[in-house]
Amino acid sequence: MTEEIAVVPGDGIGQEVVPAAVRVLEAVDPGFSFVEAEAGDAVAAARGTPLPESTVETVEAADATLFGAAGETAADVILPLREAVGSFANVRPARAYPGVDALRPETDLVFVRENTEGVYAGHESDLGEGVTTLTRVVTESASRRIAEFGFAYAAERGADVTVAHKANVMRTTDGQFLHAVDAVASEQGATYDTELLDAMATKLLLDPSQYDVIVCPNLAGDVLSDLAAGLVGGLGLLPSGNVGAENGLFEPVHGTAPDIAGEGVANPSAAILSAAMLLSHLCHDGEAARVRSAVEAVLEDGPRTPDLGGSATTDAVAGAVIDRL
Amino acid sequence: MTEEIAVVPGDGIGQEVVPAAVRVLEAVDPGFSFVEAEAGDAVAAARGTPLPESTVETVEAADATLFGAAGETAADVILPLREAVGSFANVRPARAYPGVDALRPETDLVFVRENTEGVYAGHESDLGEGVTTLTRVVTESASRRIAEFGFAYAAERGADVTVAHKANVMRTTDGQFLHAVDAVASEQGATYDTELLDAMATKLLLDPSQYDVIVCPNLAGDVLSDLAAGLVGGLGLLPSGNVGAENGLFEPVHGTAPDIAGEGVANPSAAILSAAMLLSHLCHDGEAARVRSAVEAVLEDGPRTPDLGGSATTDAVAGAVIDRL
Ligand SMILES: CC(C)[C@H](C(=O)O)[C@@H](O)C(=O)O
Ligand SMILES: CC(C)[C@H](C(=O)O)[C@@H](O)C(=O)O
Repeated sequence: MTEEIAVVPGDGIGQEVVPAAVRVLEAVDPGFSFVEAEAGDAVAAARGTPLPESTVETVEAADATLFGAAGETAADVILPLREAVGSFANVRPARAYPGVDALRPETDLVFVRENTEGVYAGHESDLGEGVTTLTRVVTESASRRIAEFGFAYAAERGADVTVAHKANVMRTTDGQFLHAVDAVASEQGATYDTELLDAMATKLLLDPSQYDVIVCPNLAGDVLSDLAAGLVGGLGLLPSGNVGAENGLFEPVHGTAPDIAGEGVANPSAAILSAAMLLSHLCHDGEAARVRSAVEAVLEDGPRTPDLGGSATTDAVAGAVIDRL
Repeated sequence: MTEEIAVVPGDGIGQEVVPAAVRVLEAVDPGFSFVEAEAGDAVAAARGTPLPESTVETVEAADATLFGAAGETAADVILPLREAVGSFANVRPARAYPGVDALRPETDLVFVRENTEGVYAGHESDLGEGVTTLTRVVTESASRRIAEFGFAYAAERGADVTVAHKANVMRTTDGQFLHAVDAVASEQGATYDTELLDAMATKLLLDPSQYDVIVCPNLAGDVLSDLAAGLVGGLGLLPSGNVGAENGLFEPVHGTAPDIAGEGVANPSAAILSAAMLLSHLCHDGEAARVRSAVEAVLEDGPRTPDLGGSATTDAVAGAVIDRL
């Protein structure tokens, strides 16, 4: 049975790294068919909207989506697309690879970020007189769902769970989050630690090895996972998955990198690793493992793009990954 | 004219580092009188409230307050005390000192954190059916006030300003924040850059030297300044000031450190540097500079507490600072 993969390169280096990742998917050949769709600044300029309805339909109809990056319109593209695939969990592994310069080479974390609510629920008002408000929403159901996902994800890996929160200030909302996590943990006989968001920012820098899987509210996950990118040497190597019950959208954590876009030298590793997450999501675990190992091997001693101190092109790195499959 | 300083050691190592900082203040002798007041877990256990009304009155009446740390009750103590001194700006310098092991030795930042609103405004509701909300409030007046303070603070130091925000998601509220900052900048002919909160977390790790003064909303400042603590080697060296129009409360960024409390080996540097900020705030700039230089000299080649790899006591370090004044 052919699975259909929507491919949405978007803007900037998305146009370079996504095709590279598709080449790798074609090489492992899990029987995918690909359908391309547009999103981002360029299509906004051309067609008046950064996210044409046809793109949303393509993504909804596909078995999974590989997304690149969007520029100024990023939020207008990625937030609706996360919703389109029914994603409730944003999974962000952050690990340092042998051979790659990292501030903390021992970093090996996975952020499991709630992907539907918190400040992203987006109820804002301008009340006049210079007073604006945003309603942060935290529900028991979404908190339970991310906790169930996080504990299952960690159990599969034999990993410990830490829950990041700011319930000393956001007592009712992050209190709800913690309460739901705790209820799920009791039901499953799972254990976990908690850590205040601010303290966690310090501790991640001082000793990331004390954490494995970090379950967190939406904005906390946004900031902490980008912090972790700093620990492993930058955004160039971080993949992510927006996972839903039946569908998923996979994307590098990096953006459009306008400074190098068009030069063909963007690092495709994060996009290729995102493709590996897509493979796992669709239960092609063997293929996913092959892709991951090939990327690791190339990172260790293969050609490198300029961000990692080399002078190889995007295509050369993708080619090297394919050679190592 | 004697100025009255409220001294609130609080819990844990607050009881050790605050007296050490007071000794240093007495040694530079700016003509302070000290009045001690209680707050925190211990007084909550003894008197049923972590923040007795008498403490609030003492802090309100004083010219400035030196605070230590509070345990479980931290939020119930520090948030009302920030309000009691009318603080609108939380100033958090984070710099690496020669001789101290730091992840990024080039770090030299000052966070200017809005100290009254955002998610800290604290309007939360449990709407039933597992739905909770928090109303994040951002006003033009508070945003203008922190911008004015931040630009003036940066101008005095010849420093650049970067404004951290998440206006791509919190469009109305962080939009208001940015709009007010921009209006103040135009009025003053000041310049600044902006950076998304998540991107800033990565960039602070990769190259903190590109930033000087970082003006940010309340929770963003909480997280980013703790991140910066990780860059300079931990919370042990970070002072802070909660600054208002007429009053101020100064406190180390660290907490009660229950693991070492009572042993007399807590690092008093953050508390002593907070006392230096208090001196500056009351326009004793010469004394402030003397204290800062003495702390730096001791950090460079004086006795060290165990957190910095030494075996000196809190008192020995304070004594060494006094000797170098
Ligand atoms: C573009 C933006 C809306 C998005 C987010 O905040 O989730 C991005 O920062 C990310 O983390 O994927
Ligand atoms: C104790 C807590 C309420 C406080 C805050 O979040 O402001 C602390 O983390 C700080 O940064 O001083």
